[in-house]
Amino acid sequence: MESHYSFASIGVVHSCFKEKFGVPRQPGLAPESRAQLELLAPYNRAESVSGLAGVSHIWLQFIFHEFVGKAWSPTVRPPRLGGNKRMGVFATRSPVRPNPLGLSVVKLDRIDIVDGKVILHISGIDLIDGTPIVDIKPYVPYVDNIPEASNEFADSVPKNLLVELSAQAESDCEKFAHEHPLDIRALVMQVLQQDPKPSYQTPDSARVYGMKLLNFDLQWRYLVSDLADGESVLSIEVLALLD
Amino acid sequence: MESHYSFASIGVVHSCFKEKFGVPRQPGLAPESRAQLELLAPYNRAESVSGLAGVSHIWLQFIFHEFVGKAWSPTVRPPRLGGNKRMGVFATRSPVRPNPLGLSVVKLDRIDIVDGKVILHISGIDLIDGTPIVDIKPYVPYVDNIPEASNEFADSVPKNLLVELSAQAESDCEKFAHEHPLDIRALVMQVLQQDPKPSYQTPDSARVYGMKLLNFDLQWRYLVSDLADGESVLSIEVLALLD
Repeated sequence: MESHYSFASIGVVHSCFKEKFGVPRQPGLAPESRAQLELLAPYNRAESVSGLAGVSHIWLQFIFHEFVGKAWSPTVRPPRLGGNKRMGVFATRSPVRPNPLGLSVVKLDRIDIVDGKVILHISGIDLIDGTPIVDIKPYVPYVDNIPEASNEFADSVPKNLLVELSAQAESDCEKFAHEHPLDIRALVMQVLQQDPKPSYQTPDSARVYGMKLLNFDLQWRYLVSDLADGESVLSIEVLALLD
Repeated sequence: MESHYSFASIGVVHSCFKEKFGVPRQPGLAPESRAQLELLAPYNRAESVSGLAGVSHIWLQFIFHEFVGKAWSPTVRPPRLGGNKRMGVFATRSPVRPNPLGLSVVKLDRIDIVDGKVILHISGIDLIDGTPIVDIKPYVPYVDNIPEASNEFADSVPKNLLVELSAQAESDCEKFAHEHPLDIRALVMQVLQQDPKPSYQTPDSARVYGMKLLNFDLQWRYLVSDLADGESVLSIEVLALLD
């Protein structure tokens, strides 16, 4: 048996996420996040996606291209588990793994075939700009939906933080609304409510945090509210979208 | 951007299916079908699967090793659609595709770590013996279950054929019951009710069909019953399991 296999990029993702920081940790968590998947030659033929428009969701098998050639470790510390519990790499979806191969199910919104280009418009993504795609497969509900499946480490959607927009941020969202074919305000809310920073980090309330989103520098800060019972609640105030 | 990526086999599948003919067309269709996934060095460390036992199902990203190096075509003719309708390769899960990369969700029954070997016992498989595995990921229900997903070409489980066992086949199932840690009779029924032959082929009722299953040569024939309304119904009679 061969022990190594070579794969070609069949497509590349043009994503609203321009850097690792802030990319949702799983697909589907930010439904308003969008990307165009452009097929590359010689795979960019209209026939190769014939019938695909009859499918609501697709699986993408992709390369964690920022992790190619990086050393893997048998265990990783998933941020979801507080960053201090070690799990076997095959029990996680960490990008640091023996083969830097990713798997995401995304919504297929539309297919455009124009000027010799084949573009799949996708949403609910967790993919960084420039991600190489090695395969596209249709979601098959009667196979892929497993209502009885259980996962004791990831059994429900992570709890969201409360996100509020400053007057400046509200105004920025309106000002740039026409520049992008998506709801910028909804995207900002969905991305930040998941808390881009590792959940085990105590935020510095004096610090302005930032991430690149679309063509903006999205800026926010963390607010800590003390409750009557001595507990405290973390929330986010969006400060501005700078272009 | 690089255009090619190299992947190592991290494991190999020891499957009840010894040849392509008769392998279920999707995972989950034959719950009694079983395999052992053996991790290969240097990935065969107990730590690498730490926590995985807390997960009921896993995704396997694997190589269609019998199709490596084979030419791909932008369209394929899925057997499910009668074999005469062409679909874009990316709208199907055909093994003949630009990168011979497969994706299956299977049930994880048990993990054995003995004598330096790490063995994942899996069931509900659609994998042929010797399949190289390039990644294992946990099924994450809140991400992978998409109740609202639709696929107009594969919207429900394919209709099963009626399968009956001859006296000889019943006796063979009993005789060999102790040789395998699974229900041979159930496996035979589940595999044959999906009709291994392409559904658009008219079976030759005089012919004995066969496939290798476990260490047997499973033999059956097709029966055609004419109904009062002029329609006819296809069924299968299992003839024998020869060892």
